[in-house]
Amino acid sequence: MELKERALRAHEQWGGKIEVIARCEVGSKEELSIAYTPGVAEPCLQIRDDPSLSYRYTRRHNLVAVVTDGTAVLGLGDIGPEAGMPVMEGKCALFKAFADVDAFPLCIRSKNVDEIVRTISLLAGSFGGINLEDIAAPRCFEIERRLKEVCDIPVFHDDQHGTAVCCGAALLNACRLTGRRVEDIKLVVNGCGAAAIAVTKFLMLLGVRDIIMVERFGIVCAGDERLNSAQEEMAQCTNPGRMTGTLADAVKGADVFFGMSAPQVLTSEMVATMARDPMVFAMANPVPEIWPEDAKKGGAAVVGTGRSDYPNQINNVLAFPGIFRGALDVRASDINEAMKLAAAKAIAACVSDEELDAAYIMPVAFDKRVVRAVAEAVAQAARDSGVARL
Amino acid sequence: MELKERALRAHEQWGGKIEVIARCEVGSKEELSIAYTPGVAEPCLQIRDDPSLSYRYTRRHNLVAVVTDGTAVLGLGDIGPEAGMPVMEGKCALFKAFADVDAFPLCIRSKNVDEIVRTISLLAGSFGGINLEDIAAPRCFEIERRLKEVCDIPVFHDDQHGTAVCCGAALLNACRLTGRRVEDIKLVVNGCGAAAIAVTKFLMLLGVRDIIMVERFGIVCAGDERLNSAQEEMAQCTNPGRMTGTLADAVKGADVFFGMSAPQVLTSEMVATMARDPMVFAMANPVPEIWPEDAKKGGAAVVGTGRSDYPNQINNVLAFPGIFRGALDVRASDINEAMKLAAAKAIAACVSDEELDAAYIMPVAFDKRVVRAVAEAVAQAARDSGVARL
Repeated sequence: MELKERALRAHEQWGGKIEVIARCEVGSKEELSIAYTPGVAEPCLQIRDDPSLSYRYTRRHNLVAVVTDGTAVLGLGDIGPEAGMPVMEGKCALFKAFADVDAFPLCIRSKNVDEIVRTISLLAGSFGGINLEDIAAPRCFEIERRLKEVCDIPVFHDDQHGTAVCCGAALLNACRLTGRRVEDIKLVVNGCGAAAIAVTKFLMLLGVRDIIMVERFGIVCAGDERLNSAQEEMAQCTNPGRMTGTLADAVKGADVFFGMSAPQVLTSEMVATMARDPMVFAMANPVPEIWPEDAKKGGAAVVGTGRSDYPNQINNVLAFPGIFRGALDVRASDINEAMKLAAAKAIAACVSDEELDAAYIMPVAFDKRVVRAVAEAVAQAARDSGVARL
Repeated sequence: MELKERALRAHEQWGGKIEVIARCEVGSKEELSIAYTPGVAEPCLQIRDDPSLSYRYTRRHNLVAVVTDGTAVLGLGDIGPEAGMPVMEGKCALFKAFADVDAFPLCIRSKNVDEIVRTISLLAGSFGGINLEDIAAPRCFEIERRLKEVCDIPVFHDDQHGTAVCCGAALLNACRLTGRRVEDIKLVVNGCGAAAIAVTKFLMLLGVRDIIMVERFGIVCAGDERLNSAQEEMAQCTNPGRMTGTLADAVKGADVFFGMSAPQVLTSEMVATMARDPMVFAMANPVPEIWPEDAKKGGAAVVGTGRSDYPNQINNVLAFPGIFRGALDVRASDINEAMKLAAAKAIAACVSDEELDAAYIMPVAFDKRVVRAVAEAVAQAARDSGVARL
């Protein structure tokens, strides 16, 4: 049976990929008097007097909302809130399976930034964290920025920052393998959407200095009238030499290619013009910017993709479960840059010097050590940066 | 150990009374490709083309939101959204334990009707039903009315309608026991808040013709300037004789007393002035309008309260689990009057003629037959009244 058909049947059999269960017994008069009236009044009153006790007496301490407006679901585009739900439920199942985080999906029937922000902020007291998912750019930037301002719980747009953390980990280990320092490399990011921008900002935070971004129309350069405001902002902090031209021009002599763009836009010939032992991360899904075989033909020393059927899969599941686990464990008020950097380094460190190999720069998605390592590093970074409340 | 202390400790040990679990496996590459990318794209696309398939491929078919603004929690008043959460989680645990309904608590940080309505309506696509809970009057009326207009899923304010259904069932069986017809009785409702109004309207729907409502200041009579708009509306359809006076005046010669008001406002002496074999339902919690012993002293033939330590407990848990189970089972677009009437009759019918007794007019809260009987009756009523979509 084809995958599509198997997926449909499985979804029908599951009848939903998440379920809400009770953690308390309410099958007798005595049990009911503790879990419900009249006993429940006491934790209510305690929380009224000190709202932070909601983390002690309710599920909030372990609970994350997975929120979308259904406008950028997978590669499917704007399919609406109901149609986004299978992905959100899947994400929630991953949260539970990988990090024992309770995650609940909420699909908002609005494309209005004010309304989305308001809706989520009014519900923030019911959750310990907010994972934004599959919200189209540029709306996603403003929604996340404003929610971070008004919420005292972590807000994290996984498509941006989870991807960035994983790309950062991949870069760290690729540099370790090829004997480079991130400060010295020349790096090209193909694409200038939400994920590409988040990855670029994060790589700069990791220490990369020389980055050129490339859009469909060519190299992103300050002053170009075709840039939207987010892209213009990136043009200001990348491409210091004000280079113009095509992707082929950009990659000449570059050490690293990160593709967050379209299928098969990078050729073996272009890879052959890169620096010695180049690293190629072709993240377009399911068809990458260049197939790994072709990248190797061009001389790539390391190749990574978003696919599970090739080595070095760059998969957000390495990041978001541990990041939220760590944030919840210390009741962090935010997921800040320090915590994301710690997460990237922790993921990279899950591959030892002995294990490190061109075909193994990233831990595999199902490596159980990763969540624990990421969670501990993130929790420590939260403490060190002053956002931990435990 | 005192109940308060035991409840606090239990809540701390539970660490939340609900939990979100995964219904699918995501522990291998193959499983992930079905439950998440790339397989998940197919149910997403199916739902995009036909949103009603969200009931087939996601948990929506079994999922109810339990929503509050935290303004009328138990008898505690306006304690805020976080402090309302233990009650909402308890309600969700009851939904699961009694009817296998997945219920998820959402506490909204707003007291603005527009904002509450908008927030809930934007999330309606993620749920199969909305249970409103512990929202203060008169706000609760408008919120429910407007949500029913804009949502194509059932919206049900349990404090109003769950209580009304249970009171209706109690009245039916008390009449059966004492050989009366509901059409013939004279009934007094003490209190004129949200629950009292909902109960009164529902009892009229059941066939009761002669009802007098009484507020703190006396009998509710059309034209009284002390009435708010909801009370004035009730004055128009009750108290046809335009009687004025006190509670003591109202109960003289009445067959039934329903109290949804304050502790110990009804005396044995007042009960003694009621009609022969009077029925007294004293629902104030935890201290009823009259203690059952005192009601009997005054000659009451049947006494019910909200308490579990006396016979004839009138407990919403007899109603809401089965009502939502039935509504979800046929994918009802509404919970209408016909469905509520069916629920009341089903609850009453759970007590057979042989079982019926002054100390047993209501099935006990943990009688497992009740949910099934209510669900089947509600589902049938939904079909008969044209709101079933399955």
